[in-house]
Amino acid sequence: MFIAMNRFKVVKGAEADFEELWLKRDTHLKETPGFVEFHLLRGPEREDHVLYCSHSVWRTYQDFEAWTKSEQFRKSHSGAKSSKPLYLGPPDFEGFHALQTVSSAVAGG
Amino acid sequence: MFIAMNRFKVVKGAEADFEELWLKRDTHLKETPGFVEFHLLRGPEREDHVLYCSHSVWRTYQDFEAWTKSEQFRKSHSGAKSSKPLYLGPPDFEGFHALQTVSSAVAGG
Repeated sequence: MFIAMNRFKVVKGAEADFEELWLKRDTHLKETPGFVEFHLLRGPEREDHVLYCSHSVWRTYQDFEAWTKSEQFRKSHSGAKSSKPLYLGPPDFEGFHALQTVSSAVAGG
Repeated sequence: MFIAMNRFKVVKGAEADFEELWLKRDTHLKETPGFVEFHLLRGPEREDHVLYCSHSVWRTYQDFEAWTKSEQFRKSHSGAKSSKPLYLGPPDFEGFHALQTVSSAVAGG
């Protein structure tokens, strides 16, 4: 399993604009081979920003890599731009490989 | 859905010790109410460390919070210590609330 995360430092006051931009976009992910799940995450609030993460889970690193080279990827990253500055700096990409997985013994958590 | 992550900067050369310490511990998570899934993740390699994350998914923030106050939590954090220094600085905790979830249209990704 591979998890791809992009960390966004969203400036104070722009949280609603950032969320609207993300929540209305069409990601084309659902039918992508090897795609498991995507979350838009709201993280901790710091002094000058709120941390958000796009968090996508893939069956393997190779599935993720194939998607980044696809036409769908290009389309989903060429979407609507905001009319005001939303970020402190560029997003910070981090890719993670799962070494161990423990699942709930109870269905549905 | 709530995701709790702890980010560990593991010094170069200590990766195997860190992984062994984590992979052999008993987390008691499986039967915890509201627990969904845990992953130990290996992330990007930087100049002086490798980033690892403990990544646990909870049904709600309240489920996570209840676990942090439990005897099981205390037990799972009082485990084996390493005989050599593994980290650059303390772990960095980040909690995330899911704003949006997109799941694969194909069972099993």
